Parts: sequence; structure tokens; C-alpha cells
Amino acid sequence: MPSSVDELIDLLDLEAIEDNLFRGRQPDTSMQRVFGGQVLAQSLVAALRTVPDPFTCHSLHSYFLRPGDTKVPIIYDVEEIRDGRSFCTRRVAARQHGRPIFYLTANFQIPEQGLEHQDRMPQVPSPEECVPAVGRDSSYSDTWLREWAALDVRPVADSREGGSLDPTDRPARSQWWIRVSGALPDDPVTQLAAFTYASDMTLLPAALVPHNLYIGSPGMQAASLDHSIWFHRRFRADQWWLYDQVSPSASGGRGLAIARVFSQDGQLVASVAQEGLIRNRDPE
Amino acid sequence: MPSSVDELIDLLDLEAIEDNLFRGRQPDTSMQRVFGGQVLAQSLVAALRTVPDPFTCHSLHSYFLRPGDTKVPIIYDVEEIRDGRSFCTRRVAARQHGRPIFYLTANFQIPEQGLEHQDRMPQVPSPEECVPAVGRDSSYSDTWLREWAALDVRPVADSREGGSLDPTDRPARSQWWIRVSGALPDDPVTQLAAFTYASDMTLLPAALVPHNLYIGSPGMQAASLDHSIWFHRRFRADQWWLYDQVSPSASGGRGLAIARVFSQDGQLVASVAQEGLIRNRDPE
Repeated sequence: MPSSVDELIDLLDLEAIEDNLFRGRQPDTSMQRVFGGQVLAQSLVAALRTVPDPFTCHSLHSYFLRPGDTKVPIIYDVEEIRDGRSFCTRRVAARQHGRPIFYLTANFQIPEQGLEHQDRMPQVPSPEECVPAVGRDSSYSDTWLREWAALDVRPVADSREGGSLDPTDRPARSQWWIRVSGALPDDPVTQLAAFTYASDMTLLPAALVPHNLYIGSPGMQAASLDHSIWFHRRFRADQWWLYDQVSPSASGGRGLAIARVFSQDGQLVASVAQEGLIRNRDPE
Repeated sequence: MPSSVDELIDLLDLEAIEDNLFRGRQPDTSMQRVFGGQVLAQSLVAALRTVPDPFTCHSLHSYFLRPGDTKVPIIYDVEEIRDGRSFCTRRVAARQHGRPIFYLTANFQIPEQGLEHQDRMPQVPSPEECVPAVGRDSSYSDTWLREWAALDVRPVADSREGGSLDPTDRPARSQWWIRVSGALPDDPVTQLAAFTYASDMTLLPAALVPHNLYIGSPGMQAASLDHSIWFHRRFRADQWWLYDQVSPSASGGRGLAIARVFSQDGQLVASVAQEGLIRNRDPE
């Protein structure tokens, strides 16, 4: 995984092979499978490369199909679904060994003004008052944390226990302050892609909160199934954002997590949803 | 639109043209464009027809690309994306006049047991205590309500004003009791499809609640952009379900609405998300 911000920026800079065809590099990693956030972010970059100014991404929906091989590059093949006056649509197939490992569809819009409202940001301690995940939590090994050095990731204290919500009404909540751990270029593509990369890291574990389990718990088989993002307002991935994650449901070996993303000044900048496989083979 | 439950059942029964290729009929309607819920439901039926027992749908993600023409049938072309041991994936293109009007990707799973939790159902008046939408609300004309006669749709009193949530924290909420207004066959395909049909009806308007606007308000241009459903637990579309809709954000001419679906006995049976265009050309 990218062990520095520079490596993360490299990871998000795809090689153009042909019109609408790109190749994404692989970082050194000890992970068995390609991190979902990497495939997500590289796919979004591929789609954005085929969209003219001033279109910007307002949403994406994706499915993870097969584990990615960390040993070979990933090919991103962009299909131009539609080019309209206000909106355009792209579909990206991520391929390895001749087979799709991931599909993403993204929608783009020419920025316009309109009706405005948003949920209010929950009251939480500031990022400075929260302790980085490094060494704090037995679910994250030192190796794991070195892999994630490009991100500064801080759990909001006690948010695993339900935070300010009634745990009877909403059993699963998990809040994190996250930012890229150094300055990124100002260009919106890199900012969007870096956020997208990070958005896959802490989300599914929110579904394990009421069960006192972690992705790394013995017997736990966990994998992202889908991933959706709606971008509401422009923001920077290299400045703090609050990842306010809840899991409304787990059933049938799957957990759903839905998150609101707030910039530190209280703007709701994005919403994210992910369902994942959460098989527990060791039900103590 | 289907003016009876029998017509709705007919609408959800596609004609098979070839393997993985289907044709959906059109109901009589005064609507200018095909109702999004119809395309959603017929696409899901097409996908389900290509999936072997005992796989059941656990999620779908879709984009609306072009308005559907109510005068000609819609062709549904199913691509077999992946067939795995536990999961399989289908993509459906809905086509008219040689062009895609809609894409849906859906994921299917062999039912299994696993970790269980869910949000608690909010306390609301029973459907019997709520008044059907017919004639109640100036945003819905008599013509419109005749079009929707296959559904029994009851707004939960005062839910437009924020219900039990603090409107400062969450400005937009809208709750409805909904059911198909007569018995459906027991088969899970029809039940799932009928729910999917109805799920597109009241969702986007939740984003207009804080602005005191309706889809039919003067100068309002509204259209679904995407639609996602996660099916958590089996339920019947012809028995009451609570559609607990919130809109976390509106910005840039778009509104996002997210909903929890509860059966009357309090089970969280599905989650739904939709972003839509909500352009207001008549800002008073």
C-alpha cells in the first residue's frame, strides 16, 4: 500500500494506453488482495479522464466481483454511456487476467446552483482530541498500520459504543476523523480520488460494532460487495473530514453501512453506502 | 399506469424473446414519461429470470439515462456478469428506439444465516390511523391518483414537518405507509418487483420537504438520477410497510433521499437510496 502521500498520488495517476483505456500501478503490499479503495479510486480517475470540463462527479455506484491480484497492474476500460447537456455517464470495467474484477458506473454534472439543505454535523471531539488508530486498537496490527501510512485515521472516542445515539434505536455507529496525512495537489481529480480511496477503509467494520467483532477477528470472512458515493459539496481529502458511519442492518451474512461525511467546518460534503459480506465462522 | 393490482401483475410479467432478452409491456397512462419504478421493477424481473434457484436478490444499483417513451415497449437485455458459488451478478440494459434509457446492476446470493442486527422502527401511527393520499394533498391530482390505484399510499401525519427528529439536525423527513392495494401471488419475484415499483414513488419528494415544494410545484423540474435498494429480509409488498425517508442533503440542483423500509411488525426489510434532479425554475 502507499506508505506516503507521494506514493498515494502516484497510485492515483494512471497510465493512458489508448482513448478510454488506462493502466493502474500496484503499490508494494503485504495484503493478499487489492484494497477495494484502490480499485474504486483508480476507476474514478479513469472515468474522470474521459469527461470534459467542467463536468464533475456527483455520484458513483460499484460492485466488487473478484479479489484483485496485487502482483499485476489493473486495466481500466471506460465505456461512454451517455453525453448529455447537463449530465454524462461512464462505466468502468477493472480487469485482470482477462476477467472483470470490478465494475463502476459514475455520473457527472456541470456544476449549477439550486435548493440547499443538509443534516447538521453531530457534536464530536475535534481531531486533535482524538488519538490516532496506530497502536490503539488490537484489531490493527503494526504491519497494517504501516500499509496505511498515507492516511491519518482517528477513531472518535467511544463512538463504537453508540456515540450520541440511542443504541436501542440504532445499534451500530462508528465515527472517525480522517485525512490524507500530507498535502495533495489542488486538482479536484486527485482530491476526489484520494477521498474515494480512504472511504473504503473503515466503513464495513461499522456493521461489526454491535457484535464486538473486527474485520481481523478469528473466523471472520469480510469483503466489500458494493460501494456507492454521492458527492454533495467540494472539499479536500487532505483536510480533516468526519466519517459518521452507521449500520442499519446485518442479516444473511451481509452488513450494510451508510455514512455521512462532514468537513471540519460542518458542511455535509458526501454520503457513502457499502454492503459487505461479514461471515463469522467462529461464533463464540 | 396499472389501475388495478391485476394490471400491476401483468406489468411485472415480461415476455421472453430469447435467452436473457425480454420485452416489457406499457400500461395506459397520461404520464409524459415512463414511471421510473416501472423500469426498475421490470429490469429486476428480467435479471431474476436469468438467475437459478435458490439465489435471491440482495441489492441493486441503477442509473436513469433518458426519459422512457410510454408508447412503445421496453426491451430488457441481461448480461451475465458473474456466476459464483455464493453470489452472482447481472447487468440489465433497458432499451427503446435503439438507445439505452436505463442501466441496472443487481447482485444475488444463496440465502445463508449470519450476524443479525437492525435499527429499531420509529414510533408512528398505524396505517389505519393515517389518511390515504387521495384528495388529501394538493400536490397529487385526481388523475395522478387514478394512475396509482394499484397502490395504497398513506402519508404519516406530520411527517413532512420532521416527525420525531429534530428538524435542526435533520431538516428533511417524510414517512409513508404503503402496500399494494390487493393480494399479489406469493412468489418472491412478484413481491420483490412490486415493492421495487412502489419504491420510486415518494422518495425524491422527501428532498423537497424543507423547501415546502412538491414534484408538481410550478417551475419544478424533477427526475430520478439513480436508485439503489438493499434487501435485508423477506417481506410482502401487499402487506403494509413503512417508508421512513430522510433527505440528508440538497445541493447543486440535486437532492439525495435515503429510506429505511420496515414491515408492520418492526422488521427492517430493506434500505433504499435515490438521488434526483430537483431544479426549481420558479424561486418565489
